[in-house]
Amino acid sequence: MITDYALKILALAKGLTPMTKSNIFYAQSGGVTSVINATACGVIQTAKKHPERFSNVLAGRNGILGALNEELIDTFAESEENIQKLYTTPSGAFGSCRYKLKGLEENREQYQQLINVFKAHNIDTFFYNGGGDSQDTSHKVALMSQEMGYPMTCIGLPKTVDNDLPFTDNSPGFASVAKYVATSILEASLDVASMAESSTKVFIMEVMGRHAGWIAASGGLASQTATKAPHIILFPEIVFNSERFLAKVDECVKTHGFCAIVVSEGVKDENGQFLADAGRKDAFGHTQLGGVASTIASLIKDKLNLKYHYAICDYLQRAARHIASKTDVEQAYELGKAAVLKAIEGKTGMMLTIERTNNNPYQWAIGEAPLEKVANVEKMMPRDFISEDGFHITKACLEYLSPLIEGDAPPSYVNGLPDYVVLENKLVKKRCL
Amino acid sequence: MITDYALKILALAKGLTPMTKSNIFYAQSGGVTSVINATACGVIQTAKKHPERFSNVLAGRNGILGALNEELIDTFAESEENIQKLYTTPSGAFGSCRYKLKGLEENREQYQQLINVFKAHNIDTFFYNGGGDSQDTSHKVALMSQEMGYPMTCIGLPKTVDNDLPFTDNSPGFASVAKYVATSILEASLDVASMAESSTKVFIMEVMGRHAGWIAASGGLASQTATKAPHIILFPEIVFNSERFLAKVDECVKTHGFCAIVVSEGVKDENGQFLADAGRKDAFGHTQLGGVASTIASLIKDKLNLKYHYAICDYLQRAARHIASKTDVEQAYELGKAAVLKAIEGKTGMMLTIERTNNNPYQWAIGEAPLEKVANVEKMMPRDFISEDGFHITKACLEYLSPLIEGDAPPSYVNGLPDYVVLENKLVKKRCL
Repeated sequence: MITDYALKILALAKGLTPMTKSNIFYAQSGGVTSVINATACGVIQTAKKHPERFSNVLAGRNGILGALNEELIDTFAESEENIQKLYTTPSGAFGSCRYKLKGLEENREQYQQLINVFKAHNIDTFFYNGGGDSQDTSHKVALMSQEMGYPMTCIGLPKTVDNDLPFTDNSPGFASVAKYVATSILEASLDVASMAESSTKVFIMEVMGRHAGWIAASGGLASQTATKAPHIILFPEIVFNSERFLAKVDECVKTHGFCAIVVSEGVKDENGQFLADAGRKDAFGHTQLGGVASTIASLIKDKLNLKYHYAICDYLQRAARHIASKTDVEQAYELGKAAVLKAIEGKTGMMLTIERTNNNPYQWAIGEAPLEKVANVEKMMPRDFISEDGFHITKACLEYLSPLIEGDAPPSYVNGLPDYVVLENKLVKKRCL
Repeated sequence: MITDYALKILALAKGLTPMTKSNIFYAQSGGVTSVINATACGVIQTAKKHPERFSNVLAGRNGILGALNEELIDTFAESEENIQKLYTTPSGAFGSCRYKLKGLEENREQYQQLINVFKAHNIDTFFYNGGGDSQDTSHKVALMSQEMGYPMTCIGLPKTVDNDLPFTDNSPGFASVAKYVATSILEASLDVASMAESSTKVFIMEVMGRHAGWIAASGGLASQTATKAPHIILFPEIVFNSERFLAKVDECVKTHGFCAIVVSEGVKDENGQFLADAGRKDAFGHTQLGGVASTIASLIKDKLNLKYHYAICDYLQRAARHIASKTDVEQAYELGKAAVLKAIEGKTGMMLTIERTNNNPYQWAIGEAPLEKVANVEKMMPRDFISEDGFHITKACLEYLSPLIEGDAPPSYVNGLPDYVVLENKLVKKRCL
């Protein structure tokens, strides 16, 4: 079989300018978000506008596993309409994975296998859409491809609801979670406020953020509204002290009639133990599974004897495309588009970033950060974004967060439900395995 | 002090046609919803259009407690703009309560006190916006007012997210929860589907519905979309059998790669015990539930060793005005409006209902049901709305549910968040206590 790659080599051998047409490999990695498909949409639609350079965007089925298993999705075979719907569809349309490639030293073969698959499918451009781990992979693919004499364009596309990637002002996916969390705690707080006189006094909402408190912080946006709730935010960055916490809850109930709390799943006690892993039991002696909200609720029940309710947002928060931030969706799309244009310019070895060029009015641009510097670095909440008592966010944090949740870009609805797309995901024929 | 009531009596004594202007008492009762304020909006705006009949709508601060404590909110003192915003604001704007009046026989004094407050404030019209318990109260107020020679117009306005009121085709508040639940499980299922290959295989979403499975059923609406999820729905009406359940979960994971489950908080085992009995009761004597999702998750982990995640929607589901059903909001408003018009017509002693006059296209009208028949009756899911195996809904159920979630009537947004109103809630001067 004569591959495009072989044709390119032949052209070079004949002293001709080679046909530079090739394929992009695009993969989604790690926990998905409500806007990662908007990035995919940006990549695919922009690549299609450059047929002189790109023949196809081949997406990894289940992320990087798709490349390892040579399961490559022919995205150009999807209808234009379906690709457009990616703009408004949450989740990872091609499948994502929790799979970390080992270091180059430990597993050179796996990287070689990747490059072989890429070669066989005339892929010279690698876009990896993920968090810190994924950027590390992108970096290693870039190194290995050079070493194997098949230098590839490697560009990282940021994505993480945790917002903990360095260099970028924010990460796509986060702002929509922020909008969901702020809206949800606002709505639930209004509910509790209206019932508190004779019913629930404390409401706890558990949100994601294993190490960084950005998502919990976003609940604070709601406190600018008339309810003033949430009254307490618990961050992973702040050691949990039950006495101080209980005193604060008690004070809130006395002052406001109720207390609304946003708690990050990653809150730790003075021993560095996750509260959710503390092996606590509910009123009936059942061990609670990973729910920091129920741990906090038990504490409040035991010590203050207040009626509580709690919600655990879990995947709902990161999948809630129906209330995505327009800013977030636009940034996600533009990053995908920019990756294609940068690749055409010959840029490689970097992760694209979002730079805040002005705060009020909010303006942003796309920047770049070297892949080797991005890998495996987590960006925590700066201490001056958290109030002195550790229970809320500061004005500086509000100023950072506010523009990110601006605007909406809702999906269309059919029969009362969002019209999300599930793609055909047709695989191209295997050439290696 | 000469009250309006005294003036009316004086006019009658002089042989004159009395001034018939009086006040409406309106109260919100029990768990609030995302559209109960739309009903309040309908009552207030319509009453204002009939100044020949009504001088004011006095709302109970914290529901019926407001009447007992003579804490009456002057709703006509609110700005037109604020009242309009009730249309798009979740929760109970005047406060609600979990407080059940005792039977007439047991606590005659309390009813007399109510009537005395009503008399003192020239209130001859009583609108009680609540579920089954509240309709019982409306009925008793009607009886007592007659007995005390101060016959009042008593109209019940339906409201319950549980959708378990009899006579009415559906209850305001439910349809918006249905839309939220169906949208949320759709979104989360797409998320899980994209990660299942290397991560979470089972997702559990816990929803409200203590006795009736209507809310859980509404998750089934999402299964009409491409994901086919949720694959399993657990109803309070169907006895939970762990073996059959686990076999079904296992089958789903093998067939679809993952399993999405919607579970009602009210699911019971073969002994009639709630799977998630928190061992506490609310003011109505109902057991307070929460945490069936973690019970189910433990079971799946123990017996099938599958990676799971779970979400607990709790108050988020009933407060989610941002994704309310337009059908629901419109019905809620129209019921409030109709109550005022029926009162003017001299109707009393009934709860307003929603009648489905046509299914496709969906058409509805407002009907009436006698209060004494509504009180304390719960409408469960009919067995033919639940699939034979007990794990899903039938076509008949889909046909019932589908029109209810149609359309949206979103709030406006300010700074990226819904622009919900918190009213001034100015109390009128006490005359009794």
